[in-house]
Amino acid sequence: MSTKNLACIFKKVPKGWPTPGEHLTVEDIGFDLDQDAPENGLIVEVQYLSLDPYMRGRLVGPEAKNYAAPFTLNDPINGGGLAKVLKSNAPDISEGDVIIHHLPFQQYAVVNSKDGKFRKVDAESVGGDIRHWLGALGGPGWTAYASLYAIGKPKKGEMIFISSAAGAVGQVVGELAKREGLKVIGSVGSDEKLDYIIKDLGFDGGWNYKKEDADSALNRLAPDGKIDIYYDNVGAEQLEAAINHLNNYGRIVACGMIADYNREEKYPIRNLMQFIGKRLTMTGFIVSDPQFGGPWKEEHQTNVSKWLKDGSFKGKTHEWVGMEKAPEALIGMWRGENFGKAVLKLAP
Amino acid sequence: MSTKNLACIFKKVPKGWPTPGEHLTVEDIGFDLDQDAPENGLIVEVQYLSLDPYMRGRLVGPEAKNYAAPFTLNDPINGGGLAKVLKSNAPDISEGDVIIHHLPFQQYAVVNSKDGKFRKVDAESVGGDIRHWLGALGGPGWTAYASLYAIGKPKKGEMIFISSAAGAVGQVVGELAKREGLKVIGSVGSDEKLDYIIKDLGFDGGWNYKKEDADSALNRLAPDGKIDIYYDNVGAEQLEAAINHLNNYGRIVACGMIADYNREEKYPIRNLMQFIGKRLTMTGFIVSDPQFGGPWKEEHQTNVSKWLKDGSFKGKTHEWVGMEKAPEALIGMWRGENFGKAVLKLAP
Repeated sequence: MSTKNLACIFKKVPKGWPTPGEHLTVEDIGFDLDQDAPENGLIVEVQYLSLDPYMRGRLVGPEAKNYAAPFTLNDPINGGGLAKVLKSNAPDISEGDVIIHHLPFQQYAVVNSKDGKFRKVDAESVGGDIRHWLGALGGPGWTAYASLYAIGKPKKGEMIFISSAAGAVGQVVGELAKREGLKVIGSVGSDEKLDYIIKDLGFDGGWNYKKEDADSALNRLAPDGKIDIYYDNVGAEQLEAAINHLNNYGRIVACGMIADYNREEKYPIRNLMQFIGKRLTMTGFIVSDPQFGGPWKEEHQTNVSKWLKDGSFKGKTHEWVGMEKAPEALIGMWRGENFGKAVLKLAP
Repeated sequence: MSTKNLACIFKKVPKGWPTPGEHLTVEDIGFDLDQDAPENGLIVEVQYLSLDPYMRGRLVGPEAKNYAAPFTLNDPINGGGLAKVLKSNAPDISEGDVIIHHLPFQQYAVVNSKDGKFRKVDAESVGGDIRHWLGALGGPGWTAYASLYAIGKPKKGEMIFISSAAGAVGQVVGELAKREGLKVIGSVGSDEKLDYIIKDLGFDGGWNYKKEDADSALNRLAPDGKIDIYYDNVGAEQLEAAINHLNNYGRIVACGMIADYNREEKYPIRNLMQFIGKRLTMTGFIVSDPQFGGPWKEEHQTNVSKWLKDGSFKGKTHEWVGMEKAPEALIGMWRGENFGKAVLKLAP
């Protein structure tokens, strides 16, 4: 018997901003809840889906060459998420367990694993809020952790500027940098977020980029208008301003350039000549590359889990609720409407 | 008694291209050849002056913050050069010696040194052409050597693209990269230079940027249109094209961006987003920084001197003759009219 199973489908390749109902649709693809789990596999009900900036790069035609494979047209899109196990045919996994896994954007799914190994998660080990598995302890947290240390090379007393500072990665970078004894300033998209990074996360300063341009804010907030590290989640105007304000030997961690993702004509950067006189370095990265695994990954898991449990690490999550909202939630996330790590909640 | 002593004077800060006679003038500032050399100092006749792209950054107002100090208005400009000793009051230096030193752009000069130490040079130790002391064995050669290895991290079999490949730095980078077993391609500004880098220096390919754009040339010359290292002397369009053609983990050595030096409105770069997906790194540098001294400097001197003597290293020099030509020579060098290392010859 088929149960209703709403899915978010990649229907058409967008140019610029995608439109709900045209490029991304929500459709009932049905699900047979009576079926057995496959060998080494599970039948799950999806609880939370991670909404991440990089997913914009997968809304492209099959011919596109990208580090993340394009989504398949007319199939549900996919990403990281948490799911409750309804049936298990995998060792060590039982009905009722919650797993973190790569999942299709649908309410119910069959999930597979070559060797039947799945990663179980619980709320206790992240201080009570299971959604941290998708945020501070998940991909965004690992991204922040590995890249801040490996590329940013923070030193006590330095000044770091983080764009999209209340976002999933930005807020973790900020909390880590404060722990390392840096001065931390950030840009955000609302006054509420500005309050949050300063009052809750302990940033030394920040600004609402919709009200103040990066250039004047950096003059106002950084000593002599100078910064040592720019952690870039945004690109465009903020990247250009950061280059103007970087000190000699400044580092740019190129994590994301969300301001350009949905722009057909990209923002023109005209000040790269400063790389020479100021000996700047800009490095892009993909956290799943081997150099960020191993020790970085273990250190991130150990430390952030400990800090979440003892309450010394924060991290906010922003929820949209219901698969019907998936296209709007994605677009909202790309527009920066989320306040913290963006997730889509499907079931409690 | 005052002898005629032509000097090249920094007369006015230019916007965009300087004009001979307005921003840079040639004037007789006189010289007393009867004076004695100061303690630890010399009286010299200047033979060759080095003309270098970075000097454009010194033709700015005194308020400008730059890694190289601005030239002083109404004073002769200065730079590296070779000079014949007329009188010496320094230990170990005799009349008739030739030294390499930082010199004012004038025919005769008093030169000082705190401890009286000067570096003597001769033609024999560079294979017969003393001008190599300003080129392959001088600042441009050291620049090429240290940055190619320290930043470019060349690996045998990789593909490097060098812009301004027949220039002072570019030609040395090319010869070094060939020695390391890389595939080497380069852009130049004339068909004669193209012949030179391919036939004389052994480049695997190249193009005249005035006849072909970098994008189509890279498609034509690189396997799958992909390069691993971009050694940038030019910036602007060629930098943008290189970013499009860099492989994953590609490196950009930001040595110079001469295409922007004399442009008031800089070229807009719109493809920095590729830094993330392709994990690119771009690093600017100043060769006089401590990390490029010591071992790099010694290795450069030892190896390049050996190769120049045994004839296995080439390196072309381009001469303008006479102080009267200094402003035109500088502008010609910035326009890329030189074919190899640019020097101004004053006296034999």
